[in-house]
Amino acid sequence: MAFSKIPIAIIGGNGLTGMELIRILSGHPQARIAAVTSRQNAGEKVPGTDLVFETLDVSKIASKAKTVFICLPHHEAMQVAADFRKKGIKVIDLSADFRIHNAKEYEAWYGVHTQTVLLAEAIYGLPELHREEIKKASLVASPGCYPTSIILALAPLLAKKMILTDQIISDSKSGVSGAGKQARVEVENFRAYNVAKHRHTPEMEQELSLLAGTDIKILFSPHLVPMDRGILSTVYSVPSKKTSLSALLEVYRKFYADEPFVKILPEGVSPQTKDVRGTNDCHISIILDERTNRIIILSAIDNLTKGASGQAVQAFNLMWGFPETAGLEKIALIP
Amino acid sequence: MAFSKIPIAIIGGNGLTGMELIRILSGHPQARIAAVTSRQNAGEKVPGTDLVFETLDVSKIASKAKTVFICLPHHEAMQVAADFRKKGIKVIDLSADFRIHNAKEYEAWYGVHTQTVLLAEAIYGLPELHREEIKKASLVASPGCYPTSIILALAPLLAKKMILTDQIISDSKSGVSGAGKQARVEVENFRAYNVAKHRHTPEMEQELSLLAGTDIKILFSPHLVPMDRGILSTVYSVPSKKTSLSALLEVYRKFYADEPFVKILPEGVSPQTKDVRGTNDCHISIILDERTNRIIILSAIDNLTKGASGQAVQAFNLMWGFPETAGLEKIALIP
Amino acid sequence: MAFSKIPIAIIGGNGLTGMELIRILSGHPQARIAAVTSRQNAGEKVPGTDLVFETLDVSKIASKAKTVFICLPHHEAMQVAADFRKKGIKVIDLSADFRIHNAKEYEAWYGVHTQTVLLAEAIYGLPELHREEIKKASLVASPGCYPTSIILALAPLLAKKMILTDQIISDSKSGVSGAGKQARVEVENFRAYNVAKHRHTPEMEQELSLLAGTDIKILFSPHLVPMDRGILSTVYSVPSKKTSLSALLEVYRKFYADEPFVKILPEGVSPQTKDVRGTNDCHISIILDERTNRIIILSAIDNLTKGASGQAVQAFNLMWGFPETAGLEKIALIP
Amino acid sequence: MAFSKIPIAIIGGNGLTGMELIRILSGHPQARIAAVTSRQNAGEKVPGTDLVFETLDVSKIASKAKTVFICLPHHEAMQVAADFRKKGIKVIDLSADFRIHNAKEYEAWYGVHTQTVLLAEAIYGLPELHREEIKKASLVASPGCYPTSIILALAPLLAKKMILTDQIISDSKSGVSGAGKQARVEVENFRAYNVAKHRHTPEMEQELSLLAGTDIKILFSPHLVPMDRGILSTVYSVPSKKTSLSALLEVYRKFYADEPFVKILPEGVSPQTKDVRGTNDCHISIILDERTNRIIILSAIDNLTKGASGQAVQAFNLMWGFPETAGLEKIALIP
Repeated sequence: MAFSKIPIAIIGGNGLTGMELIRILSGHPQARIAAVTSRQNAGEKVPGTDLVFETLDVSKIASKAKTVFICLPHHEAMQVAADFRKKGIKVIDLSADFRIHNAKEYEAWYGVHTQTVLLAEAIYGLPELHREEIKKASLVASPGCYPTSIILALAPLLAKKMILTDQIISDSKSGVSGAGKQARVEVENFRAYNVAKHRHTPEMEQELSLLAGTDIKILFSPHLVPMDRGILSTVYSVPSKKTSLSALLEVYRKFYADEPFVKILPEGVSPQTKDVRGTNDCHISIILDERTNRIIILSAIDNLTKGASGQAVQAFNLMWGFPETAGLEKIALIP
Repeated sequence: MAFSKIPIAIIGGNGLTGMELIRILSGHPQARIAAVTSRQNAGEKVPGTDLVFETLDVSKIASKAKTVFICLPHHEAMQVAADFRKKGIKVIDLSADFRIHNAKEYEAWYGVHTQTVLLAEAIYGLPELHREEIKKASLVASPGCYPTSIILALAPLLAKKMILTDQIISDSKSGVSGAGKQARVEVENFRAYNVAKHRHTPEMEQELSLLAGTDIKILFSPHLVPMDRGILSTVYSVPSKKTSLSALLEVYRKFYADEPFVKILPEGVSPQTKDVRGTNDCHISIILDERTNRIIILSAIDNLTKGASGQAVQAFNLMWGFPETAGLEKIALIP
Repeated sequence: MAFSKIPIAIIGGNGLTGMELIRILSGHPQARIAAVTSRQNAGEKVPGTDLVFETLDVSKIASKAKTVFICLPHHEAMQVAADFRKKGIKVIDLSADFRIHNAKEYEAWYGVHTQTVLLAEAIYGLPELHREEIKKASLVASPGCYPTSIILALAPLLAKKMILTDQIISDSKSGVSGAGKQARVEVENFRAYNVAKHRHTPEMEQELSLLAGTDIKILFSPHLVPMDRGILSTVYSVPSKKTSLSALLEVYRKFYADEPFVKILPEGVSPQTKDVRGTNDCHISIILDERTNRIIILSAIDNLTKGASGQAVQAFNLMWGFPETAGLEKIALIP
Repeated sequence: MAFSKIPIAIIGGNGLTGMELIRILSGHPQARIAAVTSRQNAGEKVPGTDLVFETLDVSKIASKAKTVFICLPHHEAMQVAADFRKKGIKVIDLSADFRIHNAKEYEAWYGVHTQTVLLAEAIYGLPELHREEIKKASLVASPGCYPTSIILALAPLLAKKMILTDQIISDSKSGVSGAGKQARVEVENFRAYNVAKHRHTPEMEQELSLLAGTDIKILFSPHLVPMDRGILSTVYSVPSKKTSLSALLEVYRKFYADEPFVKILPEGVSPQTKDVRGTNDCHISIILDERTNRIIILSAIDNLTKGASGQAVQAFNLMWGFPETAGLEKIALIP
């Protein structure tokens, strides 16, 4: 029944991740969008709903929502998250503000952190690694899009200590929606940007290091593809001892056996961004190149779904004890 | 004067590289297109010229052209090249048939080679490496698009023995024209293909090994970008001893100091495929990542120009003693 | 409960409309995909389901499905539809074979019709015009994509006799998926095709004539947009008597007041294909240009959803007495 | 010889039309780029040249250039044009400021005109209509991109009074570069904008009225295509008396017989924006639809070349008595 759905609010809901949350939550059997805020669009109709964008009034929102999804820029998000936590409201923050446990590390990449106390409380919201913690969390830091694609690609190899930990490279390619609503685009252009210095680096290194049980540095090279949605990461690694493709596939299939959203593709099949468009899925394939002694992992996600809003809803489901796939059982929009 | 221009013919001129040759040669001060052949389009007007596509008659073409550019599929090209060489006509072959000196290696990737005698005569047509040989050549094997982008990216480092030779990875991305005129495309999709087993691999390893003076194996991962033209290669390597970005830049600037088409970008500037569109230029930038001890080289070319027809014209200029840039002094079409 | 869902089959399910049906029906509360056929992919897994493509065996399919969606090319579809009708199975045909009531007219555009008897039984499956007939239909001819966008744009004006019936022009633009899975595409190109002679013309003229109560000829100009999905039709007409924008808006809002999928946009807002992507919606806006005495109607649909598979499911819902929006309550995938 | 080339300056040269001028003029046999100004990029290198962007100093520029191309926004352009005219420098203005002879009409669409005296001196720079005046002009108002495509499409029909003058519709589609360097783009979207109220309307009506010898109002509907370059206009008209396609083709071929840049396509061939990319060409095809009694003209240009900078250079050639095609003999970049 409608009145038993959990009322949620989306803070900063006029951007791409906010719109994607609305798309997903509108079809969610156990959630109800109670409010969407936007300074810029206050008073306008929220597309796809019967609501009107409102300005952010924490008390008011707290009185009508039991969980808030924060879609604000980093720095802005941390204060708002703190305000809602003071009211006892569960928070799922889609910014980078609570992803990095070490405040010093955060500050090296993003600037001052004013809510360091809350950092201890925050859970990194990647269910494939932190499912049990997310279930009990009151503050979830939803992962970045690139880190999601890369951590899922590498997790089994690192957990099983099958690769050298100082030889990892991820060459990642993202559609332009990763750059936000205001980004300028050429239809016919391709380029790299922020090679070896993108802000998503510390977040993936933190999680990969946890998995490996040792400090990991990764070379991360992001690129911009002239398409709207999708990330493909091509991850290069060196096996720590002789292995075979069938052994690798076995490891991946076991590691992700119970995961509803991670799919290991058959040998010889490559992930394509179109096959995950609009879904919360991550498609992974593994290649073993004996000529050069490398394991290559390809992973594809939709940067706005599994890479942002879909994953946030997955965490929401865990926090409230709903089926993890609720609202997320989509088939890709092809083409 | 027009009558003193060298008459040339284009064999198999109805594909993308043929059309690109027509575009370039039409504005060439010392060349004149005397014939364009096409089985499929015989009798039709050749776009951009006053000619009509003719069927291939080697004697007839040999009587009116002094150089032929062969734009046929591999296997087909080798026989036609042999026929023209028997008539004493200079040949620039854009297929893979004469790029690989070792017939066994060719056959491992492409199938039977029926003109192995000619292999000894063929020169790999990358002017930046083989300028003097091209000047004297009668049969030039014009390089593949991916190898051009990758060899130019790596040549200075290998020639100066600045990187480990068994740790090279090239993650390359190409527009769809690389797949030919008939390729199907989705506008909104990105994917890898033939990772670690693309046929351009032996060709680049041959040239890189020559440069390094030792056998090199490279991990080559091609990807398909939903744009028409352009290749960006992101090449990863490990320095063989401690170095600095300024030292690296110095090496590159010296190595390519006299090259009209290779441009080393200033520190912090990334190559973009749009900046080389329609030109014979190769834009290169170098990044030194001390965190992971990697040298990353980014190189951008237009796959149909420097990656195919422009480079073939560059070789033609050398073979005939014309200024190397004749017909090739273009500014990029932006956007 | 799952076992009470209506089992359906998709005939020719490996093309774009078949895949779109699977996407929609997988989330349908009252339908269950019991079989998907494909000659070409027989034995392979059906993406997004637990099924395997099977070859077409009418008796076998008839024993396990209560409705079939036919996604075959025209001519092929008519025979298969007849076979299923003989078995008493409800048919929703997505080809052109049963859209045109007049067999002569069909044959002028498409070639011989071998099932003319069935034509009398077929209902044109545009619910906004033929809802009551569809409810009782056993054979629904699901409309073409262009006709859907154009008929919905013009219906109110023709029904209310507000425009001249011999002055209608539709300049329509479609993404490349309208040309099917095998179509070649340039990323950077725009062109018209089949101007004034596209096969969708007789179908739209039949329906517009019915609405107007008089024979209508329309000038229809299709164009190809380098994007995957979406149709925008820009329809030009001449008012039959003086009118105002508010009067026009009033007419449209009334005409479509109870329609779940047709949305009349506020004055000054233009439909965009992205706003209907993946949905069964049709967005319409009306412009009155007093300078040139023209009414311009803009309408946007997703060619694969409202223009094909979504509309077919809408008809299915009506045929079985389900809520018309079942399985179709989607929010657009933006961007 | 280089020193005899005409020195020119580009004012506001960091935008798309400025860059396109540099691309064209760099290969011009009789022009030399002496200066390029840009407030925003002053001090930076001008791509494709050995120059540095300078701030605008009219006296300084006037001392080193004999013609200036003004690429400033409207309103800004008019003052700068006046300043250069006072110094006796020939001006080719790419803004809208001098295109509309009637100051009132200009002000109705663009705001105050402060240089109305100069309006009398300005020539509308479409060589196909005003060649002799341009030859003698000191101030050329280079036409807008849409008007170029539409006027060339209609000129023969209006000059020969073959169509009704109150029934003209142009449905035009432009790549995103028409919207300038800062425009935001979705890769997968199509939409109309400013239907029946775009600022290019008065300019085309002025020229079409001159041709027809009577006042013409045209319904102009612009649309945005997710590609970088190109305009296709689909122009609808009603024949004033019975005609035939061969008669129409004859009229067009005669009208444009001596035009180097206008190409009438054979019957049944459609213009495509890719076929004119990077060229100064306009491709036109004519369709006669007897069913609806309409003449449809399709015309394709590159919005930045024939639609802007190429056409400006064509006018420059005429003003200086150079061959009209100097610097403009390009073959399209396909794809």
